[in-house]
Amino acid sequence: MALIVQKYGGTSVKDVDRVKHVAQHIKSFRDAGHDMIITVSAPSGVTDKLIDMTKKFDKRPPTREMDVLLSTGEQISIALLAMALNDLGIPSVSMTGSQMGIMTTDAHMKARINYIKTDKIRKELDAGKVIIVAGFQGITEEGEITTLGRGGSDTTAVAVAAATGADLCEIYTDVDGVYTADPRMVQNTQKLAMITHDEMLELASLGAKVLHPRSVEIAKMHGVKLSVRSSYETSKEGTFVVNRDQLEKEFVVTGVACDQKVAKIGIFDLEDKPGSATKVFQALADANVNVDMIVQSAMRNNMNDIAFTVPLDEVDNALEVLHELKDKMSMSDIVSSTNVAKVSIVGAGMVSSTGVAAKMFSVLAQNEINIQMISTSEIKVSCIIEKENDTPKKAMQALHDAFELDKING
Amino acid sequence: MALIVQKYGGTSVKDVDRVKHVAQHIKSFRDAGHDMIITVSAPSGVTDKLIDMTKKFDKRPPTREMDVLLSTGEQISIALLAMALNDLGIPSVSMTGSQMGIMTTDAHMKARINYIKTDKIRKELDAGKVIIVAGFQGITEEGEITTLGRGGSDTTAVAVAAATGADLCEIYTDVDGVYTADPRMVQNTQKLAMITHDEMLELASLGAKVLHPRSVEIAKMHGVKLSVRSSYETSKEGTFVVNRDQLEKEFVVTGVACDQKVAKIGIFDLEDKPGSATKVFQALADANVNVDMIVQSAMRNNMNDIAFTVPLDEVDNALEVLHELKDKMSMSDIVSSTNVAKVSIVGAGMVSSTGVAAKMFSVLAQNEINIQMISTSEIKVSCIIEKENDTPKKAMQALHDAFELDKING
Repeated sequence: MALIVQKYGGTSVKDVDRVKHVAQHIKSFRDAGHDMIITVSAPSGVTDKLIDMTKKFDKRPPTREMDVLLSTGEQISIALLAMALNDLGIPSVSMTGSQMGIMTTDAHMKARINYIKTDKIRKELDAGKVIIVAGFQGITEEGEITTLGRGGSDTTAVAVAAATGADLCEIYTDVDGVYTADPRMVQNTQKLAMITHDEMLELASLGAKVLHPRSVEIAKMHGVKLSVRSSYETSKEGTFVVNRDQLEKEFVVTGVACDQKVAKIGIFDLEDKPGSATKVFQALADANVNVDMIVQSAMRNNMNDIAFTVPLDEVDNALEVLHELKDKMSMSDIVSSTNVAKVSIVGAGMVSSTGVAAKMFSVLAQNEINIQMISTSEIKVSCIIEKENDTPKKAMQALHDAFELDKING
Repeated sequence: MALIVQKYGGTSVKDVDRVKHVAQHIKSFRDAGHDMIITVSAPSGVTDKLIDMTKKFDKRPPTREMDVLLSTGEQISIALLAMALNDLGIPSVSMTGSQMGIMTTDAHMKARINYIKTDKIRKELDAGKVIIVAGFQGITEEGEITTLGRGGSDTTAVAVAAATGADLCEIYTDVDGVYTADPRMVQNTQKLAMITHDEMLELASLGAKVLHPRSVEIAKMHGVKLSVRSSYETSKEGTFVVNRDQLEKEFVVTGVACDQKVAKIGIFDLEDKPGSATKVFQALADANVNVDMIVQSAMRNNMNDIAFTVPLDEVDNALEVLHELKDKMSMSDIVSSTNVAKVSIVGAGMVSSTGVAAKMFSVLAQNEINIQMISTSEIKVSCIIEKENDTPKKAMQALHDAFELDKING
């Protein structure tokens, strides 16, 4: 008998029929003797509808009140799931973030979980109940309702699994696992049986929207055994996200990812004094701009060119900040481009393998794809290329073929 | 500067435009220097939609989970109203029943307020904020979410007014006050400037659905000055619900009411032994049947006939209980009729006036309306008459005319 945490997304609970389906699935685990904790998102579309309402106000609504509003979606889901389990004769108890005690920071709409109270969970599990907890939401020490930001239900599930020492945390989602690349962009993709937390983290932040990055971080930190599975085909095995030492077989490259929602910004002739770059990036950080890849060219005549990428929807904000800065600092010009995409290869084995980056550059060159920027980590190589002319798709297919990801399971 | 509690119903907050309208109205009180606590219902239709979802389950959902589900409606309203006040530059803070500390019994779906914590209210009022509290909902000492039953938002408003010692509690509703009779049924009705708590209580339980009876009870108990006003024509004075000693002018009869959702049940030849009636009414109470008027005919041959009324939607349940009982007790027959209505006259001055009931019977007789049952209280006389042939409407108009209620304001 194991303790299993399962998370079901919005499409899995979008109406009563789907909720009943989820209840049946939970029943099969229950019948096998497992203790179950379930996390659910808001029914599909509910959160968007609530957000639409707030757009009718003149001012941006207070984030505190946004959280009061948005947290209702998950509260609907937990009640409906408890009712569906009741239909099947399975005792259960729903809990809001507040009721369970998912204690968070007070950063409304992007709160972080500080800790989770487990006394109520233990009590109800001991009483033989399935516990249903609202994802995405928490509460501060002062009793303020908070939300964790979009995709936060994944984080709730993993954090609850970590807090309760669960044997497994299953994330049920629209896809049946993690693939070597997005099947909508690349042919002959393969589902991975296993992937490391680090690889998943890189993929999550590279635009493979399978798991919320924060949830993977928490899973890694607390050694939570995580599984990504299909909420439609529940009999299918998904992908396990594991520690590197739990991998059955390690691959140099396990995935190709692409993020088309990026923009490139260049600053020319920035004065090459200590602290110049700091000033630039501090100003961007103060304005909540997420800077990703940063490339600084070789120094010439005490002047510097700096290029970096930002999320596409933050480029206007970033440019505004930089133009204000231009009046106070020495720089000749600021340029930007939204005709860029980031393709990346990811693999835990890269750290102990050589020539991977070189091979990537060579593949892109052979396909006449120009590399504008490069950034590498221990398990990832990313290149900025042009977005137009279907170049990202071409690049991904070429890389997928060259690294033989179609043969990864064979 | 006064402390005013206002309650807005579901139609007042049914969409963002209406919510903005409410915010403007609150602003006018704010500008006049008043401290404000606002209670809101769920947006019109939301609660019904949630209830519809629960009808798709096979079993009756656990009441605990119904409360988790239903309490989301008011949570949406409080957040939207806080956003609308934010648009107008008015600082406010929304509170769920849990956040404010509206402490109730654990009777889910029909909880009663035990007490209300006022420390947070005081703190936020001192900070110059408008307080917006979710109506209809509360929380138990164990942190379980409860609801107060339909119409419970009125109760929340009055209870909050009582707990904070507010100077006035205004209930904004679809009608602009309490009338001498339902204007849809009777001609020449008049709006009452004042009415006593007791009169309002009688009217509320007699089918004049202006205020929730429980809210009037609490107002009476704690001497809360209550006002019923129109949420559409906010400039119109409404009706004040006051203690009898605060009445400017007392009338013998202030209103005529009619309840068409009743049924009559008769038990013939019940054995006339001590405890017989108790057995009958205890069995009905155990089955949660609300028995209203009870008439016991004169004894003959140690046998008894008993007639009583129950709400129309409880008659099947009541008959089932009685037929079970018939096997255990001596009674000759059980009959029932749904072709009945209850017309009533209400007036605080009745207690010190004679001949009021006689006049009512005479008016009905003159109009050839047969009286099937009679029940009286200190400030009310009710008669059961036939429902068909528009008899209730005829009776109400005749009574309204005879007691000159059309001239009550003149």
